[in-house]
Amino acid sequence: MTRQDFRIVGQSVKRADVLEKVTGEGLYTGDYAPAGLLHGKIKRSEIAHARIVRIDASKALALPGVKAVLTHADVPRVLHYGSPHPRSASCTRDQYILDDKVRFWGEGVAAVAAISEEIADEALDLIEVEYEPLPAVCDIDAAQVPGAPLIHGVGPGGNLVIPPVHVERGNVEKGFAEADLILEGTFEGGRPVPTYMEPNVCIADWDGSNKLTFWTSTQSSFMVRGALAEVLGLPLNKVRVLVDHMGGGFGAKQDLFQHEFLCALLAKQTRRPVKMEFTRRETFVAGRSRHPFRLWLRQGFRKDGTLVARDMKLVFESGAYGSHSPGVTNVGTASATSLYACENVRLNGRAVYTNTPIAGAYRGYGVVQTYFAIDIQMDEAAERLGVDPAELKLKNAVRDGDIAPSGHPIIGDGLPACIREGITRFDWAAKRAQPREHPTNPAIRRGWGIGCEMHGSSAYPGIKEQGNATVKMNEDGSVTLLTGAAGLGTGAHTALAQIVAEELGVAFESVSVVHGDTDVVPWDIGAFASHTTYLVGSAAKMAAAKVRASVLRRGAERLQARVEDVDLVDGRVFLTANPEQGITVHEAMGPSRGIPAEHLIETASYMPTKSYSFAAHFVEVAVDTETGLVEVKHVLPVHDIGKVIHPIAAQGQIEGGIQQGIGHTLTEDYVIDRTNGRSLNAGLVDYKMPLSMDMPHIETVILEAAPDPGGPWGAKGVGEDPIIAIGPAIANAIHDAIGVRFHHYPITPEDVLKGLRAKEETTNAGL
Amino acid sequence: MTRQDFRIVGQSVKRADVLEKVTGEGLYTGDYAPAGLLHGKIKRSEIAHARIVRIDASKALALPGVKAVLTHADVPRVLHYGSPHPRSASCTRDQYILDDKVRFWGEGVAAVAAISEEIADEALDLIEVEYEPLPAVCDIDAAQVPGAPLIHGVGPGGNLVIPPVHVERGNVEKGFAEADLILEGTFEGGRPVPTYMEPNVCIADWDGSNKLTFWTSTQSSFMVRGALAEVLGLPLNKVRVLVDHMGGGFGAKQDLFQHEFLCALLAKQTRRPVKMEFTRRETFVAGRSRHPFRLWLRQGFRKDGTLVARDMKLVFESGAYGSHSPGVTNVGTASATSLYACENVRLNGRAVYTNTPIAGAYRGYGVVQTYFAIDIQMDEAAERLGVDPAELKLKNAVRDGDIAPSGHPIIGDGLPACIREGITRFDWAAKRAQPREHPTNPAIRRGWGIGCEMHGSSAYPGIKEQGNATVKMNEDGSVTLLTGAAGLGTGAHTALAQIVAEELGVAFESVSVVHGDTDVVPWDIGAFASHTTYLVGSAAKMAAAKVRASVLRRGAERLQARVEDVDLVDGRVFLTANPEQGITVHEAMGPSRGIPAEHLIETASYMPTKSYSFAAHFVEVAVDTETGLVEVKHVLPVHDIGKVIHPIAAQGQIEGGIQQGIGHTLTEDYVIDRTNGRSLNAGLVDYKMPLSMDMPHIETVILEAAPDPGGPWGAKGVGEDPIIAIGPAIANAIHDAIGVRFHHYPITPEDVLKGLRAKEETTNAGL
Repeated sequence: MTRQDFRIVGQSVKRADVLEKVTGEGLYTGDYAPAGLLHGKIKRSEIAHARIVRIDASKALALPGVKAVLTHADVPRVLHYGSPHPRSASCTRDQYILDDKVRFWGEGVAAVAAISEEIADEALDLIEVEYEPLPAVCDIDAAQVPGAPLIHGVGPGGNLVIPPVHVERGNVEKGFAEADLILEGTFEGGRPVPTYMEPNVCIADWDGSNKLTFWTSTQSSFMVRGALAEVLGLPLNKVRVLVDHMGGGFGAKQDLFQHEFLCALLAKQTRRPVKMEFTRRETFVAGRSRHPFRLWLRQGFRKDGTLVARDMKLVFESGAYGSHSPGVTNVGTASATSLYACENVRLNGRAVYTNTPIAGAYRGYGVVQTYFAIDIQMDEAAERLGVDPAELKLKNAVRDGDIAPSGHPIIGDGLPACIREGITRFDWAAKRAQPREHPTNPAIRRGWGIGCEMHGSSAYPGIKEQGNATVKMNEDGSVTLLTGAAGLGTGAHTALAQIVAEELGVAFESVSVVHGDTDVVPWDIGAFASHTTYLVGSAAKMAAAKVRASVLRRGAERLQARVEDVDLVDGRVFLTANPEQGITVHEAMGPSRGIPAEHLIETASYMPTKSYSFAAHFVEVAVDTETGLVEVKHVLPVHDIGKVIHPIAAQGQIEGGIQQGIGHTLTEDYVIDRTNGRSLNAGLVDYKMPLSMDMPHIETVILEAAPDPGGPWGAKGVGEDPIIAIGPAIANAIHDAIGVRFHHYPITPEDVLKGLRAKEETTNAGL
Repeated sequence: MTRQDFRIVGQSVKRADVLEKVTGEGLYTGDYAPAGLLHGKIKRSEIAHARIVRIDASKALALPGVKAVLTHADVPRVLHYGSPHPRSASCTRDQYILDDKVRFWGEGVAAVAAISEEIADEALDLIEVEYEPLPAVCDIDAAQVPGAPLIHGVGPGGNLVIPPVHVERGNVEKGFAEADLILEGTFEGGRPVPTYMEPNVCIADWDGSNKLTFWTSTQSSFMVRGALAEVLGLPLNKVRVLVDHMGGGFGAKQDLFQHEFLCALLAKQTRRPVKMEFTRRETFVAGRSRHPFRLWLRQGFRKDGTLVARDMKLVFESGAYGSHSPGVTNVGTASATSLYACENVRLNGRAVYTNTPIAGAYRGYGVVQTYFAIDIQMDEAAERLGVDPAELKLKNAVRDGDIAPSGHPIIGDGLPACIREGITRFDWAAKRAQPREHPTNPAIRRGWGIGCEMHGSSAYPGIKEQGNATVKMNEDGSVTLLTGAAGLGTGAHTALAQIVAEELGVAFESVSVVHGDTDVVPWDIGAFASHTTYLVGSAAKMAAAKVRASVLRRGAERLQARVEDVDLVDGRVFLTANPEQGITVHEAMGPSRGIPAEHLIETASYMPTKSYSFAAHFVEVAVDTETGLVEVKHVLPVHDIGKVIHPIAAQGQIEGGIQQGIGHTLTEDYVIDRTNGRSLNAGLVDYKMPLSMDMPHIETVILEAAPDPGGPWGAKGVGEDPIIAIGPAIANAIHDAIGVRFHHYPITPEDVLKGLRAKEETTNAGL
């Protein structure tokens, strides 16, 4: 009956939403179908860069069943924002709802609402568009040549999205002067897309009072509310955004696309509810990818392995609009100040527009690219210095007190702990001592690699984050938590309910979570940046603590005891010294006895500093030298995430991240034809994601090595971390297996065969 | 720009829900139809008192389309309560969900869920029930004779619902000894039913997590939540009650019938949503009526008109179950301590069970009956004393400092003010000086009467009321009010929004109201007892004031001024001395600038004393001496309701109350055959309500004579008052017209003709 030990936090309780999800009873946005529903569709351009000379919707409007058509002439000409923070540097504000110019192949040029999806599709074909083609710029080289066609013609100059980001610490020249070994290389990465299960979908419905109700699958309901209100000229109390279950988002759903505004406008014009649902193809064409990149990296090391200088130039390809390029560029550049500590750094990051689909936010925001390069080059350094790469990484790993990318000091030795634990648990030295040849199949070579990462459990440093939660206790001691944090499918609401139940001394089942209704939940910044458990969890704990204090105060009164002498467990207030003597919360708090509700409903706000989580991934690969196929056989991810709230959910995050990371490292790349900007594989037939059968044996290790005092009981984030370290770990393991270095992803079978051939030629040439 | 004057309070703003109601877009419970919906129906007994010997549902269950049948053997055997306060004295707890005994003709004995209403109805006929008849007790005389059959066999004895209520003040014998005139009479009233537009309806839906979502048309969502949770053995966080628009309730919908539990149980068994909707007939048979009553009253007066003694014995007919009989008996008895001040009172009230449909709460709770009797006898006293009845009532009317029925002192001279204002505005003396004969139609006689009333803007004194409200300001200064107060159709939410807008200095349209969702709104006692504006309005004002204080504090900081020196109007904080210098709430409060949500969301609780509203109704009637028809020609109701929030809504309440009051006074009576308990007119063909064409010219006068410091800006209730005074005013006017006293309602044409005949005989006999 004491609170010495955790009762709920740290337990893998049955997820609150598990039954409704497995039975199919849980509703997703697409499951809603208000009476009189119309279906909206978007006509998309089939040219990458052009001016619209003429657009004629008359034939579409004449089609029976078509209720409205919108072109650029029919919609407010406002630049909508793609971020909750228009004044912050995380997002640009450069896109119109519909424009008379087209900047990428697939951009929406008109929208239709009709009584069926089929009729809407048919109507799209009847809209006549006459384009005046403009020269298209389809890669970062073409975008950066002097005199390149300008895609926007505003901004800092050329096709730059924002002024270049420059970070400098120490004296890089001096550092390189002290170096015994200097490595230099160029790294590149493709265009992986977050292929969430649930394509983007929304429903707009206006009521008679000119209030818009808007169901949508978003990570940030308040961002959507704000953007819709602004574009539609409504006060915020006239826009209600509702989010129910979500089938993933992975960061991309913290953006605004075109369809939300078009859906709302079509509904307004027709006075009927309108649903817009992306096809899978549209999630590629009109969704958001990770930023393709090119990164030049030069690092200097002393003989003893100490890293003394780092010089980096990074270019992100933003695509036709800026979206999260400012944030990604800032985070991706600043992240190179850290991971492996280095006193002398000079970093330059930029993002450029091209006439290609839009890159945006995606799990591992900015740092997947940067740490892929840095970690591979560390591996090369170990090879050149003749030391074990795990030991070299351990030696240089950031430690307690080092300055993090955010400018805050790192708390604890999380990264060294992960590396050390992995070396032991993976039996790293013994594994690496084995022959690379497969025991039975001569075509197969085995290799072992390590990759490391760190990531902040909160957003871009320029944003003032604010976690909010309202806790409402019922008269029987059961509780409702109201939160704006979206549930992307990761079990975030379960973790929040655990935190509230723990703090209030009630059973997990006694806590219900109300979320995703902007009319009733407190303002929320959005579920991204690995921060829901850290940020909203802390706010939930604080709100619960306020209610707990009320209950204890009231219980103590009723027991004629001092507040310091009573405790609350399982809905019962009792004397700590004599647990038999107590009363239930119901007895203490029933409203018929006059306890004011104002003491049972508490909102708390939390404005955190920044915490960092860490991971080291240990990987075994098997490379088929005949086919070039790389098979990831075994992964041992070691994560420090502070206090673990729900072990199985955390493990699920890690396994999922590894699966996605294997994807972008080996197979996933959304390919754009660089001659004309056309999509070449916008769909899951041609875009190859790893399936469950492609998954390695994963042996997750979660440490509570460096709890952060800012998180609930020291908890930190885990959402993004697992996708970051797996990439360099695989690349390093491939090198370990076949002796070929790859500086790019995805590393395809073709690349492997080419690499083997080149190596053979070099070896032969050397003979 | 100053706050000297009201901007919104006191204005008849356009009701927030008016557009969705007139366009039909607003949803009522019956409009909801979740996928897979089943329809529930109840089989009702056709005998008033019996034991069920055998009940066989097998044939019903075999009917294709029938999904479940419940009889008393299938449901939890618990006494459910019909009140938010099981331990208070307002309601009994004497009814099972289904019992093996039947206590009135129409009681539910089984329930069916089927895929259509038609199949469910057909199934009802296939359920075989074998009864063992018991002697039925169908009126209060039969119920009170010694040795009467016992309907419940528990309680204080005989067929008493509760121990008799006894109130005594002063010395009644001494009072009568000082009286120059003593009057004695017996008064009776029928069984009017609150024929709300929207019959009782609910939908139950269980999700995979064993959580019940329950849409219902109720005045008290939290009462429904509590009762369902208790009966179903669920914690309160597992029951979500949702109330949308309502088509009236008039008090009756602050009760639980049988169908709510049966609906939830059928849905649980079938794992599908189930809707149960009363037919109009069921709203009579299984709904709630006003209590039929018999009241013996003896009062003594001095020659100068001073009331010196009152002795009263009151019997309410409860019907088969107690429902609100305890509360009605307490309120109805205690109310006789007041209205016309009297130092010496002895009051006895009781309620008795009979085998008839259940009487419950209905607008004017308890006092319609009591004040009907008292006010008519005052009129008789005036006649006997030879004084003007209005002057006699004015002389004896309760005044500031007199003790109210609740035990609190009356605040202000509200009743005298109403009487005085009415005497002037109605031109009372001049009207009464006219001949009673109609100028052109000799069959018609005209008469003028006055009736008075008072009523508390809060519930039964034993209940600790608590008004709660949460106010949530958005970052643009617009606001959401979260309240548990139901919107019966009277515009209560509009009044609450006005109060919040006034207090926060924003436009009325900037305030949205979220209501009727027990998961998100603060606990609410229910919308009854004329207390929503008074009780919840005060809480809303307090919550808004808390948010206002935050905004002013923040605004003052930003303006570098002291909080005392700034004001807030129309969403702008400015220097009181220099209104030009200011900033908008948006500028002061935007969350991206870091204002914590905890300061923008505030809950307030208000626990009031009791306030009283007052009214005097002045009436002109025309009595057709050939047909007995009474036509109410003109009503001038004068009401003191303190500060008026929304004049047109208050006027609407008054006009509606008068219409209902005319109904029960002249035409409405739900008749039960006293030989067998059968309903004789359960439907709107045979139960005659006044239509709009039957309405008199109404000239409403609203005074702000006696504001109550406990209400928002002094506002008091108006919901029940208008139905109370109209009855005695009409009876007194009929007497004024034809010289016949009626001591009962309804006063039918037959009664009038009988009365005229009896008077003629008496007159003739006297000749």
